[in-house]
Amino acid sequence: MEIGKLLDEKLSRRGLIKGAVGAAGIAALASGGLNIFTQAEAKEGPTEKWPWPYVKLDPEKTAEIAYEEWYRVFCGAAVINSIFSQLREKVGEPYKSFPVDAFKFLEGGMSAWGTICGSNAGANVVTNVIIGPSLKGASEDGMLMGSEMMQWYCDAQMPVYTPKSPKVTAEIPKTVANSPLCHVSVGRWMKAAGKPLGSPERKDRCARVTASVAYHTVELLNDWKDGKYKTKGVLPAKSFNIPAQSNCMDCHSGNVPTPPAAKKV
Amino acid sequence: MEIGKLLDEKLSRRGLIKGAVGAAGIAALASGGLNIFTQAEAKEGPTEKWPWPYVKLDPEKTAEIAYEEWYRVFCGAAVINSIFSQLREKVGEPYKSFPVDAFKFLEGGMSAWGTICGSNAGANVVTNVIIGPSLKGASEDGMLMGSEMMQWYCDAQMPVYTPKSPKVTAEIPKTVANSPLCHVSVGRWMKAAGKPLGSPERKDRCARVTASVAYHTVELLNDWKDGKYKTKGVLPAKSFNIPAQSNCMDCHSGNVPTPPAAKKV
Repeated sequence: MEIGKLLDEKLSRRGLIKGAVGAAGIAALASGGLNIFTQAEAKEGPTEKWPWPYVKLDPEKTAEIAYEEWYRVFCGAAVINSIFSQLREKVGEPYKSFPVDAFKFLEGGMSAWGTICGSNAGANVVTNVIIGPSLKGASEDGMLMGSEMMQWYCDAQMPVYTPKSPKVTAEIPKTVANSPLCHVSVGRWMKAAGKPLGSPERKDRCARVTASVAYHTVELLNDWKDGKYKTKGVLPAKSFNIPAQSNCMDCHSGNVPTPPAAKKV
Repeated sequence: MEIGKLLDEKLSRRGLIKGAVGAAGIAALASGGLNIFTQAEAKEGPTEKWPWPYVKLDPEKTAEIAYEEWYRVFCGAAVINSIFSQLREKVGEPYKSFPVDAFKFLEGGMSAWGTICGSNAGANVVTNVIIGPSLKGASEDGMLMGSEMMQWYCDAQMPVYTPKSPKVTAEIPKTVANSPLCHVSVGRWMKAAGKPLGSPERKDRCARVTASVAYHTVELLNDWKDGKYKTKGVLPAKSFNIPAQSNCMDCHSGNVPTPPAAKKV
């Protein structure tokens, strides 16, 4: 099925460069104005060998770090730092050279635009940087684990995790986002709680969501380290014929468009 | 204005650790179950000094690399690699140690979920990794340049850039996404073009969008290098009181909810 293969296809020029480079391959590259040797050198930096060394972490400790880190760098960088700060200590490189704090921009659904919740984006960065990208011949587990995290986030009564010493002691309502997007997740919570964006309760809710995501990411990574990981993640474009969440009605109401179909040959 | 300050606040524990650590600060950290010295070591890896060295790049050459790279690693990693592969060659570290290919998962709006278009996410990674995060006392230009890229993407007749030797020679329609999301951007184009997700035209459209984003990102970075960059980027949460795009009606139709308001003191 042509469409179904879309996100599986890996038209790897690396294969061409590494293996026997046919005349057609060289011509194709040259026509793009590229120097094949520069390209070959430019790829596969010293940290681009996967998987990165991983040692099992304590989910609760990770969640506590993520919770505290939210108050420094917000959701995305907090999830990454909660895991990578421990691996910097226990493993060292290549984690030390990964510029985690640069990912502070994931806050507020990327620069406050409300797109992907930063904790989801951070979880995806972590699983893909550790397990590696789904390049030709490589495992898809990094991307699929990231996808599994997004579905888990959509379905969970958030925040799942309660920190040991919460900064806000008032009860924090739990809501189901039914979406991986910051805008929808935060909006549903704000509606249920009746609290504005700038309230201590909303901030602590997001810090706890961040901790929840960090906790579950480490649970999955620990399973993977033990060789027990069987992904529940999917690539939704395969079933929807368009990259999509599964909550079509949230935005489209009763009028969900049908994507143009592939012609049957 | 309390809400307006939300995304500007930088409650930096780093300040506590580096400067005079009061008893209250130590107690607060200890109560979270964290070892203050481990935390101090864990932060500020060797690549976490900003800005990273940048030399001006040719936008057209960058766009051509991005176009070709789309067919290897799709949108997000292609934008990052189009810029970092050149900087690996011209500058070396820390670009060589950044695991660009791990960002292949940005494809299809993150693991095919249709959230943030990978080319936007890739542009944000680039601007924030080079210019640095908006930590306390640091420039906000990395995040704001990423935000500016998203607004530019929303408004542009995409794809803006036509590669020198396109893989698909049929005419590729141009559409305005009015959203930074993959699902909306690709969906509007598929509707206008009448082409399915798996068609060569749709693939080449996305490769050209990727090239367009890479081109404009380098234009902005070159201005920044020359000291001429004045951001057009904003943090939308400030005006909407919730992290949001500005196309509310796209999903909410005529029924846009009002976020809970902050109480006036």
